[in-house]
Amino acid sequence: MEKRVTLGHGAGGKLTQDLINSLFIPHLKNDLLMEMGDSAIIRKKPLRDRLAFTTDSFVVTPLFFPGGDIGKLAVNGTINDLVVAGAEPLYLSAGFILEEGLPFEDLERVCVSMADACNNGGVQIVAADTKVVEKGKGDGIFINTSGVGLLRPKARIDPKRVAPGDSILVTGTLGDHGISVFLARQKLGINTNVKSDCAALNTLLLPLIDKFGGDIHFMRDLTRGGFATILNEMAGQSGTSVVVREDSIRVLPGVVAVCEMLGFDPLYLANEGKAMLAISPDVAGKVLKHLRKHRLGRNAEIVGQVDQAGEGKARVFLDTTVGGTRLLDRLLEDQLPRIC
Amino acid sequence: MEKRVTLGHGAGGKLTQDLINSLFIPHLKNDLLMEMGDSAIIRKKPLRDRLAFTTDSFVVTPLFFPGGDIGKLAVNGTINDLVVAGAEPLYLSAGFILEEGLPFEDLERVCVSMADACNNGGVQIVAADTKVVEKGKGDGIFINTSGVGLLRPKARIDPKRVAPGDSILVTGTLGDHGISVFLARQKLGINTNVKSDCAALNTLLLPLIDKFGGDIHFMRDLTRGGFATILNEMAGQSGTSVVVREDSIRVLPGVVAVCEMLGFDPLYLANEGKAMLAISPDVAGKVLKHLRKHRLGRNAEIVGQVDQAGEGKARVFLDTTVGGTRLLDRLLEDQLPRIC
Repeated sequence: MEKRVTLGHGAGGKLTQDLINSLFIPHLKNDLLMEMGDSAIIRKKPLRDRLAFTTDSFVVTPLFFPGGDIGKLAVNGTINDLVVAGAEPLYLSAGFILEEGLPFEDLERVCVSMADACNNGGVQIVAADTKVVEKGKGDGIFINTSGVGLLRPKARIDPKRVAPGDSILVTGTLGDHGISVFLARQKLGINTNVKSDCAALNTLLLPLIDKFGGDIHFMRDLTRGGFATILNEMAGQSGTSVVVREDSIRVLPGVVAVCEMLGFDPLYLANEGKAMLAISPDVAGKVLKHLRKHRLGRNAEIVGQVDQAGEGKARVFLDTTVGGTRLLDRLLEDQLPRIC
Repeated sequence: MEKRVTLGHGAGGKLTQDLINSLFIPHLKNDLLMEMGDSAIIRKKPLRDRLAFTTDSFVVTPLFFPGGDIGKLAVNGTINDLVVAGAEPLYLSAGFILEEGLPFEDLERVCVSMADACNNGGVQIVAADTKVVEKGKGDGIFINTSGVGLLRPKARIDPKRVAPGDSILVTGTLGDHGISVFLARQKLGINTNVKSDCAALNTLLLPLIDKFGGDIHFMRDLTRGGFATILNEMAGQSGTSVVVREDSIRVLPGVVAVCEMLGFDPLYLANEGKAMLAISPDVAGKVLKHLRKHRLGRNAEIVGQVDQAGEGKARVFLDTTVGGTRLLDRLLEDQLPRIC
């Protein structure tokens, strides 16, 4: 049977990896793309600056949800992709694909929100493009934001630098964004106070780079696929295993309630204002203290550590609250499509 | 009545300008965005390099057409946006929005085509992203390509440098791309040999920058809205008028035939491998000779010249073959939507 694209291919899990491995890598591979970070790091002639360059398309539905909207998400998402590469976000582009019939009012709300996010994040949208497709050929608004940043002089973020013994930190509660969008979409009448955590992480994370430099081995924002998926990517790229302690993971009561009711796992839910770090154990206490001083890091925790990969297999394990250990594998597809 | 987005808002004409003026400028304006070029030119601290940065989303239908496909278009379109800013294209990003049910085979054809276009154009795709939307919420494949380029040392492309007396050159025949896509879409059974002119213009245009430097005042690829729309943009930005001689405009017989049959004007049709230039009259002959030596410029012509704006109004006039003069105004919307 003819192979076709499914929703799972866009969900950040195993199917997305299949798509990348079977199509994009064979045809488009080059040394920079193959680093597979959230941003490409360009440190080559003819350029003198060390640049980070990233792209992300946003197709979230609904367009507006508690704590944010597609515009805020698009700006902060691209800011964060640059930040976790160790780069100061500078310039963004915005490419809009609008569906015929979209109320101007909705587009205006999104523009206002993008402008606010740019001001808060210290970036400018310097290039833009708009296309319109017929009704039924799009879904309101899709936005691509690409971004250019300048690598901080001391940044040495690289999954290959992650080593056994490293501490794993998470900057806050997990699953807020995924649950907020899910509830806004499904209109189940479930009443929670859960809001998307959508936020720019530059003021939280860049000072860590400047202060702790090479001791920060890896950072990643915990978007599509959630913490568990990112941990698996890191383990695979660094050739290590990771053990995480369930009782150190913070999840808001409203998120726990919805997860228990509907069978979601917060470790796989998307966040839009949270990151994980793998760092030298020597600085773990200091970094934690630093993070907790910031509004966006006050729930930060050391949640686990990096180990040797057993039998050469990079894996992620969860030490559960009840005293067991379970494998945290990649999901075949995401629990919730179109959350970003 | 509530104002809504129409297809015309994405067509590059007056309605697109309205959208930009009423929404994007009020909320998102900054000095770089306001230059309104095809690329933003970044020459500011903290960067040392003089960069060009551009974005474009591609929603062409059908995905495949004589002379190209959405992948080739996306790579060459972004290459050309950098080139006409006077920059050497270096790095591209690719953001895919796929519709559920898309055959893998189609996506693979597009990837192969993007890879070929990257090789031919001397660029690399270093960052990528894939999203999938439900069937009926997209249209096969949408691609955003953003690009980073390095300004050539001698580049001084700026519509404000366009002055009365400047020569206007066009690098080849007009309308090939628009007609090729239109015929592939409508399946009218009209048999022509018209193919899209989709091509990377770096080897045609960048040597001109290196050789003629500041004498090249303005360059622009003739995409959405066509030659007449770009002329109007240039006239508006430079505060000049332009007079073009109809008998110097080259249009292929197959394009003429379709235009006559269906009432299209080739001056407003999209091209994807053609550019216009406004240059010092002193070098016009030399530049023409240079262009004609290149495969992509062998039909280049000097087609008109820049004048003072009469009564302070920047306008574009066509001296017609039959001896009259008519105003070449901006169209309200494009003749053909979704050609790029």
